Amino acid sequence: MRLRAIISYDGSAFSGYQVQPGKRTVQLELERVLQTMHKGPIVKVVASGRTDAGVHATGQVIHFDSELTLPMDRWRTALNVQLPGDIRVLSVEQVQNDFHARYNAVGKTYRYIWSLNEVHSPFERNYSVHVDRYKPNIERMKEASNHLLGTHDFSSFCASNTSVKDFVRTIDSIRLEVDKEMNQLQMEISGNGFLYNMVRIIAGTLWEIGIGKKSVEDLPAILQSCDRKNAGKTAPAHGLYLEKVVYSE
Amino acid sequence: MRLRAIISYDGSAFSGYQVQPGKRTVQLELERVLQTMHKGPIVKVVASGRTDAGVHATGQVIHFDSELTLPMDRWRTALNVQLPGDIRVLSVEQVQNDFHARYNAVGKTYRYIWSLNEVHSPFERNYSVHVDRYKPNIERMKEASNHLLGTHDFSSFCASNTSVKDFVRTIDSIRLEVDKEMNQLQMEISGNGFLYNMVRIIAGTLWEIGIGKKSVEDLPAILQSCDRKNAGKTAPAHGLYLEKVVYSE
Repeated sequence: MRLRAIISYDGSAFSGYQVQPGKRTVQLELERVLQTMHKGPIVKVVASGRTDAGVHATGQVIHFDSELTLPMDRWRTALNVQLPGDIRVLSVEQVQNDFHARYNAVGKTYRYIWSLNEVHSPFERNYSVHVDRYKPNIERMKEASNHLLGTHDFSSFCASNTSVKDFVRTIDSIRLEVDKEMNQLQMEISGNGFLYNMVRIIAGTLWEIGIGKKSVEDLPAILQSCDRKNAGKTAPAHGLYLEKVVYSE
Repeated sequence: MRLRAIISYDGSAFSGYQVQPGKRTVQLELERVLQTMHKGPIVKVVASGRTDAGVHATGQVIHFDSELTLPMDRWRTALNVQLPGDIRVLSVEQVQNDFHARYNAVGKTYRYIWSLNEVHSPFERNYSVHVDRYKPNIERMKEASNHLLGTHDFSSFCASNTSVKDFVRTIDSIRLEVDKEMNQLQMEISGNGFLYNMVRIIAGTLWEIGIGKKSVEDLPAILQSCDRKNAGKTAPAHGLYLEKVVYSE
Protein backbone atom coordinates (compact mmCIF):
# COMPACT_ATOMS: atom_id res chain seq x y z
CA MET A 1 0.00 0.00 0.00
CA ARG A 2 1.07 3.57 -0.55
CA LEU A 3 1.35 6.05 2.33
CA ARG A 4 1.51 9.83 2.25
CA ALA A 5 3.02 11.77 5.14
CA ILE A 6 3.29 15.43 5.98
CA ILE A 7 6.63 16.18 7.63
CA SER A 8 8.38 19.13 9.23
CA TYR A 9 12.13 19.60 9.55
CA ASP A 10 14.68 22.06 10.84
CA GLY A 11 17.03 22.29 7.86
CA SER A 12 19.97 23.66 9.90
CA ALA A 13 21.87 20.41 10.31
CA PHE A 14 20.95 18.83 6.97
CA SER A 15 22.71 18.96 3.61
CA GLY A 16 19.26 19.45 2.13
CA TYR A 17 16.46 16.99 1.49
CA GLN A 18 17.88 14.72 -1.17
CA VAL A 19 20.27 11.81 -0.59
CA GLN A 20 23.90 12.69 -1.38
CA PRO A 21 26.85 10.38 -0.75
CA GLY A 22 28.40 10.95 2.67
CA LYS A 23 25.98 13.71 3.66
CA ARG A 24 23.28 13.87 6.33
CA THR A 25 20.04 14.51 4.47
CA VAL A 26 16.34 14.36 5.35
CA GLN A 27 15.67 11.60 2.83
CA LEU A 28 18.54 9.54 4.25
CA GLU A 29 17.12 9.72 7.78
CA LEU A 30 13.62 8.83 6.60
CA GLU A 31 14.80 5.88 4.52
CA ARG A 32 17.08 4.67 7.33
CA VAL A 33 14.16 4.52 9.79
CA LEU A 34 11.83 2.88 7.26
CA GLN A 35 14.49 0.30 6.45
CA THR A 36 14.79 -0.54 10.16
CA MET A 37 11.00 -0.81 10.48
CA HIS A 38 10.89 -3.12 7.45
CA LYS A 39 13.80 -5.20 8.80
CA GLY A 40 16.09 -4.91 5.79
CA PRO A 41 14.65 -3.84 2.45
CA ILE A 42 15.25 -0.27 1.31
CA VAL A 43 12.03 1.75 1.26
CA LYS A 44 12.32 4.58 -1.25
CA VAL A 45 10.86 7.90 -0.09
CA VAL A 46 9.65 10.38 -2.69
CA ALA A 47 9.12 14.03 -1.71
CA SER A 48 7.13 16.81 -3.39
CA GLY A 49 10.50 18.32 -4.23
CA ARG A 50 13.95 18.67 -2.75
CA THR A 51 14.94 21.51 -0.45
CA ASP A 52 18.46 22.92 -0.22
CA ALA A 53 20.83 22.77 2.75
CA GLY A 54 19.54 25.02 5.54
CA VAL A 55 16.01 25.31 4.11
CA HIS A 56 13.26 24.37 6.55
CA ALA A 57 9.91 22.67 6.06
CA THR A 58 6.72 22.86 8.05
CA GLY A 59 4.60 20.99 5.49
CA GLN A 60 6.75 18.89 3.15
CA VAL A 61 4.87 15.91 1.66
CA ILE A 62 6.38 12.50 0.98
CA HIS A 63 5.12 9.11 -0.18
CA PHE A 64 6.43 5.58 0.20
CA ASP A 65 5.16 2.03 -0.14
CA SER A 66 4.87 -0.45 2.70
CA GLU A 67 3.31 -3.82 3.40
CA LEU A 68 3.76 -3.52 7.17
CA THR A 69 0.64 -4.49 9.13
CA LEU A 70 0.60 -1.46 11.36
CA PRO A 71 -2.66 0.31 12.33
CA MET A 72 -2.78 3.63 10.49
CA ASP A 73 -2.93 5.65 13.74
CA ARG A 74 0.36 4.10 14.91
CA TRP A 75 2.45 5.10 11.91
CA ARG A 76 3.20 8.65 13.02
CA THR A 77 4.42 7.62 16.45
CA ALA A 78 6.35 4.63 15.10
CA LEU A 79 8.29 6.92 12.77
CA ASN A 80 8.79 9.77 15.25
CA VAL A 81 10.15 7.45 17.93
CA GLN A 82 13.03 6.52 15.64
CA LEU A 83 13.58 9.75 13.72
CA PRO A 84 16.00 12.41 15.00
CA GLY A 85 14.29 15.40 16.68
CA ASP A 86 14.97 17.72 13.75
CA ILE A 87 12.51 15.75 11.58
CA ARG A 88 8.94 15.18 12.75
CA VAL A 89 6.13 13.37 11.01
CA LEU A 90 2.94 15.38 11.44
CA SER A 91 0.49 12.97 9.82
CA VAL A 92 0.35 9.74 7.84
CA GLU A 93 -2.51 8.46 5.67
CA GLN A 94 -3.10 5.78 3.09
CA VAL A 95 -3.49 7.00 -0.49
CA GLN A 96 -4.21 5.48 -3.92
CA ASN A 97 -1.36 3.36 -5.25
CA ASP A 98 -0.81 5.78 -8.12
CA PHE A 99 -0.41 8.84 -5.89
CA HIS A 100 2.94 10.55 -6.45
CA ALA A 101 4.21 13.25 -4.06
CA ARG A 102 6.06 15.11 -6.82
CA TYR A 103 4.07 14.53 -10.00
CA ASN A 104 0.67 15.05 -8.40
CA ALA A 105 1.55 18.31 -6.63
CA VAL A 106 -0.44 21.15 -8.17
CA GLY A 107 0.66 23.94 -5.86
CA LYS A 108 3.13 24.94 -3.18
CA THR A 109 3.39 27.65 -0.55
CA TYR A 110 6.71 28.91 0.80
CA ARG A 111 7.49 31.46 3.50
CA TYR A 112 10.56 33.65 3.70
CA ILE A 113 11.48 35.37 6.99
CA TRP A 114 13.69 38.42 7.52
CA SER A 115 14.47 39.52 11.10
CA LEU A 116 14.44 43.30 11.50
CA ASN A 117 15.70 43.24 15.12
CA GLU A 118 18.79 45.27 15.97
CA VAL A 119 20.39 42.18 17.48
CA HIS A 120 19.63 38.79 15.94
CA SER A 121 18.31 36.64 18.76
CA PRO A 122 20.34 33.45 19.35
CA PHE A 123 17.01 31.59 19.23
CA GLU A 124 16.22 32.92 15.77
CA ARG A 125 19.62 32.78 14.18
CA ASN A 126 18.99 29.67 12.07
CA TYR A 127 15.35 30.51 11.40
CA SER A 128 15.39 33.99 9.87
CA VAL A 129 17.79 36.19 7.95
CA HIS A 130 19.18 39.15 9.86
CA VAL A 131 18.96 42.42 7.98
CA ASP A 132 19.10 44.97 10.78
CA ARG A 133 21.17 47.58 8.99
CA TYR A 134 18.36 48.30 6.54
CA LYS A 135 14.88 49.71 6.80
CA PRO A 136 13.09 48.21 3.82
CA ASN A 137 10.27 50.09 2.10
CA ILE A 138 7.68 47.37 2.31
CA GLU A 139 5.09 49.17 0.19
CA ARG A 140 7.61 49.26 -2.63
CA MET A 141 8.27 45.52 -2.22
CA LYS A 142 4.53 44.84 -2.37
CA GLU A 143 4.14 46.95 -5.48
CA ALA A 144 7.02 45.12 -7.16
CA SER A 145 5.65 41.73 -6.16
CA ASN A 146 2.48 42.41 -8.16
CA HIS A 147 4.54 42.27 -11.36
CA LEU A 148 5.38 38.64 -10.59
CA LEU A 149 1.79 37.44 -10.19
CA GLY A 150 0.33 35.29 -12.94
CA THR A 151 1.96 33.10 -15.56
CA HIS A 152 5.44 34.04 -16.77
CA ASP A 153 8.72 32.61 -18.00
CA PHE A 154 10.72 32.82 -14.76
CA SER A 155 14.18 32.11 -16.28
CA SER A 156 15.51 35.27 -14.60
CA PHE A 157 14.53 33.80 -11.25
CA CYS A 158 16.06 30.35 -11.69
CA ALA A 159 19.55 29.25 -10.63
CA SER A 160 21.63 28.54 -13.73
CA ASN A 161 22.56 24.99 -12.68
CA THR A 162 19.25 23.40 -13.61
CA SER A 163 18.23 20.71 -16.08
CA VAL A 164 14.70 22.09 -16.40
CA LYS A 165 13.53 23.01 -19.91
CA ASP A 166 10.24 24.72 -19.18
CA PHE A 167 10.62 27.91 -17.18
CA VAL A 168 6.96 28.92 -17.24
CA ARG A 169 5.30 28.96 -13.83
CA THR A 170 2.23 30.60 -12.31
CA ILE A 171 2.40 32.58 -9.07
CA ASP A 172 -1.00 32.87 -7.42
CA SER A 173 -0.17 35.16 -4.53
CA ILE A 174 2.66 36.95 -2.75
CA ARG A 175 1.89 38.37 0.68
CA LEU A 176 4.38 40.61 2.45
CA GLU A 177 3.62 41.29 6.10
CA VAL A 178 5.40 42.57 9.18
CA ASP A 179 5.05 40.42 12.30
CA LYS A 180 5.26 43.21 14.87
CA GLU A 181 5.75 41.01 17.91
CA MET A 182 8.72 39.22 16.34
CA ASN A 183 9.82 42.31 14.36
CA GLN A 184 10.05 40.17 11.25
CA LEU A 185 9.19 40.78 7.63
CA GLN A 186 7.58 37.68 6.17
CA MET A 187 6.83 36.80 2.57
CA GLU A 188 4.31 34.07 1.80
CA ILE A 189 4.32 32.96 -1.82
CA SER A 190 2.03 30.43 -3.52
CA GLY A 191 2.16 29.07 -7.03
CA ASN A 192 1.75 25.98 -9.16
CA GLY A 193 5.45 25.17 -8.88
CA PHE A 194 8.81 26.82 -8.38
CA LEU A 195 12.09 26.58 -10.30
CA TYR A 196 15.42 25.87 -8.60
CA ASN A 197 16.11 28.69 -6.09
CA MET A 198 13.16 30.65 -7.48
CA VAL A 199 11.69 31.67 -4.13
CA ARG A 200 15.09 32.73 -2.78
CA ILE A 201 15.87 34.76 -5.92
CA ILE A 202 12.44 36.44 -5.74
CA ALA A 203 13.06 37.17 -2.02
CA GLY A 204 16.51 38.57 -2.80
CA THR A 205 15.21 40.72 -5.66
CA LEU A 206 12.24 42.12 -3.73
CA TRP A 207 14.60 42.83 -0.85
CA GLU A 208 16.92 44.82 -3.13
CA ILE A 209 13.89 46.81 -4.27
CA GLY A 210 12.89 47.33 -0.63
CA ILE A 211 16.25 48.87 0.25
CA GLY A 212 16.43 50.96 -2.94
CA LYS A 213 19.19 49.02 -4.68
CA LYS A 214 16.73 48.30 -7.47
CA SER A 215 13.51 50.11 -8.32
CA VAL A 216 9.96 48.80 -8.66
CA GLU A 217 10.10 49.69 -12.35
CA ASP A 218 13.11 47.42 -12.88
CA LEU A 219 11.04 44.33 -12.21
CA PRO A 220 9.13 43.95 -15.51
CA ALA A 221 12.42 44.33 -17.41
CA ILE A 222 14.14 41.74 -15.18
CA LEU A 223 11.30 39.30 -15.82
CA GLN A 224 11.24 39.91 -19.59
CA SER A 225 15.02 39.63 -19.96
CA CYS A 226 14.93 35.91 -19.04
CA ASP A 227 18.45 36.38 -17.71
CA ARG A 228 19.36 35.33 -14.16
CA LYS A 229 22.07 38.02 -14.01
CA ASN A 230 19.47 40.79 -13.97
CA ALA A 231 17.64 39.62 -10.86
CA GLY A 232 18.84 40.18 -7.28
CA LYS A 233 21.06 37.96 -5.19
CA THR A 234 19.76 34.59 -3.99
CA ALA A 235 18.51 35.20 -0.42
CA PRO A 236 20.07 32.90 2.23
CA ALA A 237 18.66 29.40 2.67
CA HIS A 238 17.92 29.61 6.40
CA GLY A 239 15.13 32.19 5.93
CA LEU A 240 13.10 29.82 3.74
CA TYR A 241 10.32 27.41 4.74
CA LEU A 242 8.35 24.98 2.56
CA GLU A 243 4.98 25.42 4.17
CA LYS A 244 2.40 23.55 2.14
CA VAL A 245 2.00 21.28 -0.87
CA VAL A 246 -1.37 21.13 -2.58
CA TYR A 247 -2.74 18.10 -4.46
CA SER A 248 -5.64 18.03 -6.86
CA GLU A 249 -7.70 15.17 -5.46
CA MET B 1 36.53 51.00 34.02
CA ARG B 2 33.87 48.42 34.75
CA LEU B 3 31.27 47.41 32.17
CA ARG B 4 27.99 45.62 32.62
CA ALA B 5 26.36 43.77 29.75
CA ILE B 6 23.05 42.02 29.29
CA ILE B 7 23.45 38.90 27.16
CA SER B 8 21.26 36.22 25.61
CA TYR B 9 22.33 32.71 24.70
CA ASP B 10 20.96 29.52 23.26
CA GLY B 11 22.25 26.98 25.79
CA SER B 12 21.86 23.99 23.42
CA ALA B 13 25.48 23.73 22.32
CA PHE B 14 27.12 24.88 25.57
CA SER B 15 28.31 22.87 28.56
CA GLY B 16 26.73 25.56 30.67
CA TYR B 17 27.88 29.06 31.51
CA GLN B 18 30.97 28.50 33.61
CA VAL B 19 34.46 27.69 32.29
CA GLN B 20 35.30 23.98 32.52
CA PRO B 21 38.45 22.41 31.11
CA GLY B 22 38.00 21.15 27.58
CA LYS B 23 34.35 22.23 27.33
CA ARG B 24 32.62 24.87 25.23
CA THR B 25 31.04 27.28 27.69
CA VAL B 26 29.51 30.76 27.46
CA GLN B 27 32.15 32.27 29.75
CA LEU B 28 34.92 30.76 27.61
CA GLU B 29 33.54 32.34 24.43
CA LEU B 30 33.10 35.74 26.11
CA GLU B 31 36.61 35.72 27.61
CA ARG B 32 38.11 34.53 24.32
CA VAL B 33 36.59 37.48 22.42
CA LEU B 34 37.56 40.01 25.13
CA GLN B 35 41.10 38.64 25.16
CA THR B 36 41.33 39.17 21.38
CA MET B 37 39.95 42.71 21.72
CA HIS B 38 42.51 43.46 24.45
CA LYS B 39 45.32 41.91 22.38
CA GLY B 40 46.54 39.42 24.94
CA PRO B 41 45.59 39.86 28.60
CA ILE B 42 42.86 37.63 29.99
CA VAL B 43 39.70 39.62 30.84
CA LYS B 44 37.74 37.85 33.55
CA VAL B 45 33.98 37.83 33.04
CA VAL B 46 31.71 37.56 36.08
CA ALA B 47 28.06 36.54 35.62
CA SER B 48 25.07 36.92 37.93
CA GLY B 49 25.26 33.17 38.33
CA ARG B 50 26.08 30.10 36.30
CA THR B 51 23.56 28.24 34.20
CA ASP B 52 23.72 24.50 33.50
CA ALA B 53 24.30 22.77 30.16
CA GLY B 54 21.27 23.28 27.91
CA VAL B 55 19.80 26.13 29.97
CA HIS B 56 19.07 29.30 27.97
CA ALA B 57 19.30 32.97 28.86
CA THR B 58 17.45 35.96 27.49
CA GLY B 59 18.70 38.37 30.16
CA GLN B 60 21.89 37.09 31.82
CA VAL B 61 24.03 39.90 33.29
CA ILE B 62 27.82 39.96 33.29
CA HIS B 63 30.53 42.42 34.29
CA PHE B 64 34.17 42.84 33.28
CA ASP B 65 36.89 45.48 33.45
CA SER B 66 38.47 47.14 30.45
CA GLU B 67 40.70 50.09 29.65
CA LEU B 68 39.96 49.98 25.94
CA THR B 69 39.20 53.39 24.47
CA LEU B 70 36.08 52.35 22.62
CA PRO B 71 33.00 54.59 22.44
CA MET B 72 30.29 53.07 24.64
CA ASP B 73 27.86 52.69 21.72
CA ARG B 74 30.39 50.56 19.82
CA TRP B 75 30.88 47.92 22.50
CA ARG B 76 27.83 45.85 21.66
CA THR B 77 28.64 45.58 17.97
CA ALA B 78 32.35 45.01 18.62
CA LEU B 79 31.50 42.02 20.82
CA ASN B 80 28.73 40.61 18.61
CA VAL B 81 30.89 40.72 15.48
CA GLN B 82 33.32 38.29 17.13
CA LEU B 83 31.00 36.17 19.26
CA PRO B 84 29.39 33.00 17.89
CA GLY B 85 25.74 33.40 16.87
CA ASP B 86 24.45 31.46 19.86
CA ILE B 87 25.56 34.27 22.20
CA ARG B 88 24.39 37.84 21.63
CA VAL B 89 25.17 40.94 23.63
CA LEU B 90 21.97 42.97 24.00
CA SER B 91 23.41 46.02 25.75
CA VAL B 92 26.60 47.34 27.37
CA GLU B 93 26.93 50.19 29.84
CA GLN B 94 29.55 51.61 32.18
CA VAL B 95 28.93 51.00 35.89
CA GLN B 96 30.60 51.91 39.20
CA ASN B 97 33.90 50.14 39.75
CA ASP B 98 32.46 48.27 42.73
CA PHE B 99 29.51 46.85 40.83
CA HIS B 100 29.44 43.05 40.98
CA ALA B 101 27.15 41.01 38.71
CA ARG B 102 26.75 38.24 41.27
CA TYR B 103 26.99 39.90 44.69
CA ASN B 104 24.83 42.89 43.79
CA ALA B 105 22.00 40.88 42.26
CA VAL B 106 18.90 41.24 44.45
CA GLY B 107 16.46 39.32 42.29
CA LYS B 108 16.09 36.98 39.34
CA THR B 109 13.33 35.88 37.03
CA TYR B 110 13.32 32.52 35.26
CA ARG B 111 10.90 31.01 32.76
CA TYR B 112 10.15 27.33 32.27
CA ILE B 113 8.42 26.13 29.09
CA TRP B 114 6.52 22.89 28.49
CA SER B 115 5.23 22.12 25.01
CA LEU B 116 1.77 20.56 25.02
CA ASN B 117 1.68 19.87 21.27
CA GLU B 118 1.00 16.32 20.11
CA VAL B 119 4.16 16.40 18.01
CA HIS B 120 7.15 18.38 19.28
CA SER B 121 8.02 20.82 16.51
CA PRO B 122 11.61 20.46 15.22
CA PHE B 123 11.92 24.23 15.71
CA GLU B 124 11.02 23.96 19.39
CA ARG B 125 12.82 20.78 20.32
CA ASN B 126 15.72 22.49 22.15
CA TYR B 127 13.58 25.30 23.54
CA SER B 128 10.77 23.57 25.42
CA VAL B 129 10.13 20.27 27.12
CA HIS B 130 7.73 17.94 25.34
CA VAL B 131 5.04 16.50 27.58
CA ASP B 132 2.31 15.57 25.11
CA ARG B 133 1.17 12.39 26.74
CA TYR B 134 -0.21 14.29 29.73
CA LYS B 135 -2.95 16.81 30.25
CA PRO B 136 -1.82 18.74 33.31
CA ASN B 137 -4.36 20.23 35.70
CA ILE B 138 -3.03 23.77 35.66
CA GLU B 139 -5.35 25.06 38.38
CA ARG B 140 -3.88 22.46 40.71
CA MET B 141 -0.35 23.53 39.79
CA LYS B 142 -1.27 27.17 40.51
CA GLU B 143 -2.75 26.25 43.86
CA ALA B 144 0.36 24.27 44.79
CA SER B 145 2.66 27.08 43.68
CA ASN B 146 1.08 29.40 46.27
CA HIS B 147 2.62 27.26 49.01
CA LEU B 148 6.07 28.18 47.71
CA LEU B 149 5.58 31.94 47.83
CA GLY B 150 7.40 33.88 50.52
CA THR B 151 10.49 33.08 52.57
CA HIS B 152 11.30 29.42 53.22
CA ASP B 153 14.14 26.98 53.68
CA PHE B 154 14.22 25.47 50.19
CA SER B 155 16.54 22.52 50.99
CA SER B 156 13.98 20.15 49.47
CA PHE B 157 14.30 22.04 46.19
CA CYS B 158 18.09 22.12 45.99
CA ALA B 159 20.33 19.61 44.20
CA SER B 160 22.38 17.71 46.79
CA ASN B 161 25.76 18.54 45.21
CA THR B 162 25.96 22.10 46.51
CA SER B 163 28.38 23.91 48.81
CA VAL B 164 25.74 26.41 49.92
CA LYS B 165 25.07 26.65 53.67
CA ASP B 166 22.05 28.94 53.71
CA PHE B 167 18.99 27.42 52.04
CA VAL B 168 16.60 30.25 52.86
CA ARG B 169 15.28 32.11 49.83
CA THR B 170 12.27 34.29 49.07
CA ILE B 171 10.01 33.64 46.08
CA ASP B 172 8.04 36.74 45.12
CA SER B 173 5.83 35.33 42.38
CA ILE B 174 5.08 32.23 40.34
CA ARG B 175 2.88 32.68 37.29
CA LEU B 176 1.61 29.70 35.35
CA GLU B 177 0.06 30.48 31.99
CA VAL B 178 -0.90 28.69 28.79
CA ASP B 179 0.31 30.29 25.58
CA LYS B 180 -2.54 29.16 23.35
CA GLU B 181 -0.93 30.03 20.04
CA MET B 182 2.18 27.99 20.84
CA ASN B 183 0.24 25.43 22.91
CA GLN B 184 2.80 25.81 25.69
CA LEU B 185 2.54 25.89 29.45
CA GLN B 186 4.90 28.53 30.82
CA MET B 187 5.99 29.17 34.39
CA GLU B 188 7.53 32.53 35.28
CA ILE B 189 9.17 32.59 38.69
CA SER B 190 10.78 35.54 40.49
CA GLY B 191 12.68 35.64 43.75
CA ASN B 192 15.66 37.09 45.55
CA GLY B 193 17.85 34.18 44.53
CA PHE B 194 17.68 30.51 43.63
CA LEU B 195 19.57 27.46 44.88
CA TYR B 196 21.28 24.98 42.58
CA ASN B 197 18.60 23.42 40.30
CA MET B 198 15.88 25.06 42.42
CA VAL B 199 13.77 26.30 39.49
CA ARG B 200 14.01 22.96 37.70
CA ILE B 201 13.05 21.02 40.85
CA ILE B 202 10.11 23.38 41.46
CA ALA B 203 9.06 22.92 37.80
CA GLY B 204 9.37 19.14 38.12
CA THR B 205 7.42 19.06 41.38
CA LEU B 206 4.61 21.31 40.17
CA TRP B 207 4.42 19.20 37.01
CA GLU B 208 4.01 16.01 39.05
CA ILE B 209 1.19 17.72 40.93
CA GLY B 210 -0.34 18.80 37.59
CA ILE B 211 -0.47 15.22 36.32
CA GLY B 212 -1.70 13.81 39.62
CA LYS B 213 1.48 11.99 40.62
CA LYS B 214 1.60 14.19 43.73
CA SER B 215 -1.22 16.17 45.32
CA VAL B 216 -1.46 19.86 46.15
CA GLU B 217 -1.55 18.93 49.83
CA ASP B 218 1.83 17.19 49.54
CA LEU B 219 3.61 20.45 48.92
CA PRO B 220 3.75 21.95 52.44
CA ALA B 221 5.11 18.64 53.76
CA ILE B 222 7.73 18.46 50.99
CA LEU B 223 8.85 21.99 51.83
CA GLN B 224 8.96 21.35 55.59
CA SER B 225 10.83 18.07 55.27
CA CYS B 226 13.95 19.89 53.99
CA ASP B 227 14.75 16.68 52.10
CA ARG B 228 15.42 16.72 48.36
CA LYS B 229 14.13 13.14 48.04
CA ASN B 230 10.58 14.27 48.75
CA ALA B 231 10.32 16.78 45.91
CA GLY B 232 9.69 15.84 42.27
CA LYS B 233 12.22 15.08 39.56
CA THR B 234 14.47 17.84 38.26
CA ALA B 235 12.78 19.08 35.07
CA PRO B 236 15.02 18.98 31.94
CA ALA B 237 17.48 21.83 31.37
CA HIS B 238 16.34 22.83 27.87
CA GLY B 239 12.96 24.12 29.11
CA LEU B 240 14.64 26.74 31.35
CA TYR B 241 15.45 30.38 30.60
CA LEU B 242 17.21 32.95 32.81
CA GLU B 243 15.12 35.96 31.87
CA LYS B 244 16.09 38.84 34.11
CA VAL B 245 18.49 39.84 36.88
CA VAL B 246 17.54 42.73 39.14
CA TYR B 247 20.03 45.06 40.88
CA SER B 248 19.29 47.42 43.72
CA GLU B 249 20.73 50.67 42.40
